[in-house]
Amino acid sequence: MTKYKLEIEYIGTKYSGWQIQDDSPSVQGAIQNAIFKFCGENTECYSAGRTDAGVHAIRMPAHIELSKEYDPYKILMATNFHLQQSNEDISILNVEKVHDDFHARFSCKKRYYIYKILNRPTRPIIDNQRVWWVYHPLDTELMDKVAQNLVGKHDFSSFRASECQAKSPIKTLDEISVKRNGDLIEISLNAKSFLHHQVRNIVGTLEMVGRHKLTEQQFIDILEAKDRTKAGPTAPACGLYFEKAEY
Amino acid sequence: MTKYKLEIEYIGTKYSGWQIQDDSPSVQGAIQNAIFKFCGENTECYSAGRTDAGVHAIRMPAHIELSKEYDPYKILMATNFHLQQSNEDISILNVEKVHDDFHARFSCKKRYYIYKILNRPTRPIIDNQRVWWVYHPLDTELMDKVAQNLVGKHDFSSFRASECQAKSPIKTLDEISVKRNGDLIEISLNAKSFLHHQVRNIVGTLEMVGRHKLTEQQFIDILEAKDRTKAGPTAPACGLYFEKAEY
Repeated sequence: MTKYKLEIEYIGTKYSGWQIQDDSPSVQGAIQNAIFKFCGENTECYSAGRTDAGVHAIRMPAHIELSKEYDPYKILMATNFHLQQSNEDISILNVEKVHDDFHARFSCKKRYYIYKILNRPTRPIIDNQRVWWVYHPLDTELMDKVAQNLVGKHDFSSFRASECQAKSPIKTLDEISVKRNGDLIEISLNAKSFLHHQVRNIVGTLEMVGRHKLTEQQFIDILEAKDRTKAGPTAPACGLYFEKAEY
Repeated sequence: MTKYKLEIEYIGTKYSGWQIQDDSPSVQGAIQNAIFKFCGENTECYSAGRTDAGVHAIRMPAHIELSKEYDPYKILMATNFHLQQSNEDISILNVEKVHDDFHARFSCKKRYYIYKILNRPTRPIIDNQRVWWVYHPLDTELMDKVAQNLVGKHDFSSFRASECQAKSPIKTLDEISVKRNGDLIEISLNAKSFLHHQVRNIVGTLEMVGRHKLTEQQFIDILEAKDRTKAGPTAPACGLYFEKAEY
C-alpha cells in the first residue's frame, strides 16, 4: 500500500459534514467516490478535522492508502476532474506521497480555525453562506481582550457540545485573536486539538461580549463554571473555516 | 419628488447585467420591483456604472426619485426585505436623501474597479464565480510594471469593445496596480470613467504579460496601435467588481 497526503478546500453548505453518512452527502464520501472513479479502489479518507454540517475548509489535510503507486499529480488531476463532473463543492489542492506512519488525524500537531463574522446592518451577498451575519455593532477590541482569558490549559466544559466524544474536557488553546477589517471580523484560533463545537461555542459567547451583554468577569466565570448551560449559544456553522494544520 | 442615493452590493452571476431587460433578470429591474412592492411607486434607478452580465458590485451608488418623502432607513429595510423575499443576490447597504441635482451617473467624479484572479493549479471553491481562475503561473511584478504604461490620458481603442457607445476612445486612467496575496491577485483601477469592456480587455492583455506571452514593448505597441484586434482577449466577467465611486 502507498500512502498519500491530500490537502482539500471545500464549502460545507450542502454537505452533512466531513464524515461519511448513509443517506446524506458528505465531503469524505464525495472524495472517496472520486478516487474510486479514478482508480477503482475503495479507500478510506482520514482528515485532520471532522467538520460539522455547513463548516468550510481552506486547506484540510487528509490521507488515503492505495494498493497501486500513482504519480501524485495524476491523483490530483483525476480526482479533481471527477469532483467537478459530480458538481461537488470540493477541490484537492495538493497530493504528495507520505511515509507509512503518517496519519492525518493522529499525527497532527496543530490545528488552525478561522471564524468570520460580517458585522453590518444588511445581509451578506458576496459572502453569503461564508460568514455569520451579526447586525448588532460588535466591540472587537473588547472581544479580543476578553478572549485572551481562554489562552492556555483549561477545562473547556462550558464550551463543549453535549455529544462531544473526547475523553477529557481539558485542552490547551495556544492562540486566539479577534481582528476587524471594515465590516469583516476574523476570529483566529489554534491548538493541538479542539472539543466538539468548542470554536463555535467560544464565538457565540464572545459575540455576547462584543454586544456588551457579558463583562470580562462574567466571561471568566463562565469558563470557570465548567458548565455548558452557562455559556452563550453555538455560533452558526457557516462562519467557520478549518484553515490549516501542522505536522 | 424626493431624491435618494442608494449604495448596493450584488453578485452578478444570475443577472443579465445592471440594465433592465424585457425577458431576463437584471439588477436594476430587481431593485425597481422591490421599491414598487414597498411603496407602489414606479421609479427608474440610475447607477454610477452599468455593469455587464456576471459582473459584481461591492458598493455601487445609484439614485431614485419618489413622490413621497420616506425615512431613508425605512426605504433601506423595506427594500432589502423584498429583495430577500424574492431571493435576489442584491443588498442595499445604505440609503440617504440627496439634493435634486445629484445624479449617480453624471455627477460621478471617480470610479473604482477591482479584478480578482485566483492563480493556482486547481479550480476555485470558496471563491467560485467570484474570481477568474488562471492556472498558468503569473508574474505579477511584471504585470504591475507593464500596467503603469496605461496611466494618464490615452486613446484606449485597443481595449474598447466594438459595441461601446462612448463618443470618444480617449480616457484618463488615474491609477492601476497589480498585487498578489498568496494565490489571489487583485488588479485595482480608478478613473473618472471607463470605456465598455475597458477593464476586462486590459486584464485579458495583462494576463498574457504575466505568462510572458507579451513583452512590455509589445504591450506599449498594442496601446499605441489603437486597434482592438491587437490586444488580448476579454477577461471573464466573474472576476470583475465595481468597487466604489466618488462624487
